[in-house]
Amino acid sequence: MLSQTLFVHHVYFWLATPGSKEDHAKLLEGIKTLIEVPSIKSCHIGVPAGTNRDVIETSYAFSWLALFDTREQQDAYQVDPIHLKFVENYAHLWSKVVVYDSVGAY
Amino acid sequence: MLSQTLFVHHVYFWLATPGSKEDHAKLLEGIKTLIEVPSIKSCHIGVPAGTNRDVIETSYAFSWLALFDTREQQDAYQVDPIHLKFVENYAHLWSKVVVYDSVGAY
Repeated sequence: MLSQTLFVHHVYFWLATPGSKEDHAKLLEGIKTLIEVPSIKSCHIGVPAGTNRDVIETSYAFSWLALFDTREQQDAYQVDPIHLKFVENYAHLWSKVVVYDSVGAY
Repeated sequence: MLSQTLFVHHVYFWLATPGSKEDHAKLLEGIKTLIEVPSIKSCHIGVPAGTNRDVIETSYAFSWLALFDTREQQDAYQVDPIHLKFVENYAHLWSKVVVYDSVGAY
């Protein structure tokens, strides 16, 4: 089991132009730059898995999961120059972003 | 970085009775039973972290993050008796469930 003390930051991106393979590739390129943010403990860049039940959200383009050892590390990530540059350079590619920030339930 | 080959299964639960501390505790008890499903590689049970920006979804009660080595392990989890029993015994406690299944983007 992952440590319950982890801060789990999960972001889902929807493309402004869903059909554009070029924008899809560009946004992936952008999300990859985030891997270098030093305060991240671990991360995963995902796309929908192809599962399909009523409760499953399948319409997003990318999942960006970042795990942090502490809340402070996540705060540092938010203002890290790499993160700020990512938003500046790639925000025009997405129409919607949904973020779920979770900390251990017990 | 987490392995890009991981299958990331992230479930968010909303309580049918959001104000009920008893139901909150019961659902946590239920989600904890899922930890024992043998096909899970790693997992995390979360609650909203208290962050608050426009893009952040804060209204859910629990986040259940389960990581699997393969798609087949996730398939096995879906039909594992522990998982089926969880749904049978605890589904009355939630009003909404949203699932995001993601696999490595590259």
